[in-house]
Amino acid sequence: MRIYDIIDKKRKGKTLTDKEINFFVQGYTNGEIADYQASALAMAICCNGMEKSEIVALTLAMRDSGDTVDLSRFGNLSADKHSTGGVGDKTSLIIAPIVASQGGKLAKMSGRGLGHTGGTIDKLESIKGFRTTLTADEFMDQTEKVGMAIMGQSGNLAPADKKLYALRDVTATVESIPLIASSIMSKKLAAGAHSIVLDVKTGSGAFMKTVDDARALARQMVDIGKAAGRNVAALITDMDAPLGYAIGNALEVAEAVEVLRGKGCRSLREICIALSAKLLELCIGLSSDESRARAVDAIDSGKALECFRSWIEAQGGDSAFIDDLSLLPQAKVAYEVKAPKAGYIGAMDAQKIGSVCVMLGAGRKKKDDEIDHSAGIVLNARRGDRVDAGDTVAVLYTSSNVLAREAEEMFLSAVEITDSAADERPLIFDIVE
Amino acid sequence: MRIYDIIDKKRKGKTLTDKEINFFVQGYTNGEIADYQASALAMAICCNGMEKSEIVALTLAMRDSGDTVDLSRFGNLSADKHSTGGVGDKTSLIIAPIVASQGGKLAKMSGRGLGHTGGTIDKLESIKGFRTTLTADEFMDQTEKVGMAIMGQSGNLAPADKKLYALRDVTATVESIPLIASSIMSKKLAAGAHSIVLDVKTGSGAFMKTVDDARALARQMVDIGKAAGRNVAALITDMDAPLGYAIGNALEVAEAVEVLRGKGCRSLREICIALSAKLLELCIGLSSDESRARAVDAIDSGKALECFRSWIEAQGGDSAFIDDLSLLPQAKVAYEVKAPKAGYIGAMDAQKIGSVCVMLGAGRKKKDDEIDHSAGIVLNARRGDRVDAGDTVAVLYTSSNVLAREAEEMFLSAVEITDSAADERPLIFDIVE
Repeated sequence: MRIYDIIDKKRKGKTLTDKEINFFVQGYTNGEIADYQASALAMAICCNGMEKSEIVALTLAMRDSGDTVDLSRFGNLSADKHSTGGVGDKTSLIIAPIVASQGGKLAKMSGRGLGHTGGTIDKLESIKGFRTTLTADEFMDQTEKVGMAIMGQSGNLAPADKKLYALRDVTATVESIPLIASSIMSKKLAAGAHSIVLDVKTGSGAFMKTVDDARALARQMVDIGKAAGRNVAALITDMDAPLGYAIGNALEVAEAVEVLRGKGCRSLREICIALSAKLLELCIGLSSDESRARAVDAIDSGKALECFRSWIEAQGGDSAFIDDLSLLPQAKVAYEVKAPKAGYIGAMDAQKIGSVCVMLGAGRKKKDDEIDHSAGIVLNARRGDRVDAGDTVAVLYTSSNVLAREAEEMFLSAVEITDSAADERPLIFDIVE
Repeated sequence: MRIYDIIDKKRKGKTLTDKEINFFVQGYTNGEIADYQASALAMAICCNGMEKSEIVALTLAMRDSGDTVDLSRFGNLSADKHSTGGVGDKTSLIIAPIVASQGGKLAKMSGRGLGHTGGTIDKLESIKGFRTTLTADEFMDQTEKVGMAIMGQSGNLAPADKKLYALRDVTATVESIPLIASSIMSKKLAAGAHSIVLDVKTGSGAFMKTVDDARALARQMVDIGKAAGRNVAALITDMDAPLGYAIGNALEVAEAVEVLRGKGCRSLREICIALSAKLLELCIGLSSDESRARAVDAIDSGKALECFRSWIEAQGGDSAFIDDLSLLPQAKVAYEVKAPKAGYIGAMDAQKIGSVCVMLGAGRKKKDDEIDHSAGIVLNARRGDRVDAGDTVAVLYTSSNVLAREAEEMFLSAVEITDSAADERPLIFDIVE
């Protein structure tokens, strides 16, 4: 078997066999296949697509290229949620305690943020004392006792995906639904959970700009998961504006606590309930109605918040902030952005708002940048809200007024103020299962 | 400008600007753009094609990436012929003296053979004393005096093409008509001739298997040449069987002399007359009929053979072989291949026959292989000829009987013997100008 013939076959739009895909993934991971051959194949896949059998084979080969986490002791209860990346997306901090409080087992690995999207690990590091590095035993034992654990990526999960993704990132071959689906799912499958809910975002702040693309990606990921013997479903959710009011690490932790207190942003609460309910359905086997009732009750009874507290404490965090949010890191500067004119808040460019947060210090441009956990944005108004000229539309949190003023201009360019109220967008466009 | 955006644009099937193409060619040649980015772009071009403006820009940028030969002193008279590569293709050795004997000026650089196709320089090195390396002055002065000179590649012509071709060769991105057209034409334009005839082969022994593909390639190359201000035309000629009877270096030199003597293979003679006539039309400006009459007369009057002799002598070759072909290198073994059954010679797999020649020692598998100038094949029968079982269909020339017997089996698998005579194929399918 020669990589040349495999590339040639895909260039001609033919279907690769499992053996050919394994040959590529193994050869590329161990360095026998050159970057320039892998990038040519990736481009041929971008242009000519992949059949379902090829996508599954690629995912499994990448999953099997490194370590895998064995969560079999938790059976179907082992649950995971994955979001395709958004702005202000703190749902993991809310969903995990909801599901864990109802018996689900979430042994979850999360990443750091890069560019306009944040990362759960960065958010958790806003909490004094919280440890994002756990040993394998700690990780398992805590999941057993508390029902959940969230730690940074550990071990060598799906190294083939890591290498291939880095190459795709510099060869304009990221935008391929089969390659995105197999990349995400190779890591999710390696991470071991049996029941997985995928939150596939669509809209201006999401990678998938259209609902159709999001649905196609969801379909492929769910199919891969099922082919690998897992329980998988996906929700197509809105990311045309940031999720909730807060964007930035400590600010998002605070907003998550608000929702767990039964307060906070209604649309954020609703998306978290829908995702939690679907995950309970998969991992506990309840009906759709029962799952939803349980998710709502977990919040309203305070059980999810109690689980959240136990979790923070189990990972060494000081849980005092849960009762007094001002104990979270506070920014030096709180800069109010005023509406330049009266009208209704229309489109919000979520991706641009994510980039404003990076400017404020809340995110990273490059992998090794330091971040300011207190920095970020709290919106005062959302799509459809009426504002008068001079009303505060958002507060920018950062370390200096100079930074704030620079960011203000970019922020305002991301927010449309229109004469009439825009139609409401659905929160959840579709469920794929 | 970023290479990422250029790759992304072509992945989406959009048309690149001249500036973008220049940025790529310059950046790739000087090493600023990585191989893995160039291969991704090449694959995007394979999949999504190129507009005429892009093909012209790519060709000119590659032409201008290195040295160019200045043949302006010869004006329109400077003539060149290029073949897309065939088996048994000794037409340059015949056409150049025909055209030079009529006033054309052929300062021609040729290559060596690799794989199943031969190279003019290898053929010329069968001739005792012949020098294939000339100084720039010798090259020009000889063209002035004798009307022609043929030497090996010299200088740094189209290095961008050289680098890109080597990459395409290992990334399955060779088969793209725009990339093939720009590769060939960048070198031809750099080589300086004003009037160029392209011999685009089609059939089993050619890169372009179908007449339609050959016509598309010819169209693109002629368009590029015209856009660069040159006189260019192309003939689509048959390469479904080897050209003439002889394949192998010294054997082909002998066959060329036979044609120049007014004898030899009729179809080879006819193709040489057609290509020579077209070249005379372009470089001297004669009518089509007059050009053809001049080409025929050049052979029949012996003028072309005299020009051939002057040329061989000018480059230091011993011209005695012209009157006594047995002075050319002679193989140790002449092995007769017999027809296994009676019938008509049908399809001949020219590419496979080329590979048999490599096996016999006449060609190279790898770039640095030594070759046996005396080795090769002389066919006794061609498509349409009637043979009886036991008739000699070919003679294999090589250094040992062991090699000959190995080659015999492969040779016979390349030649079809059928019950009824196959239809004749045209020699020339089309003229593109």
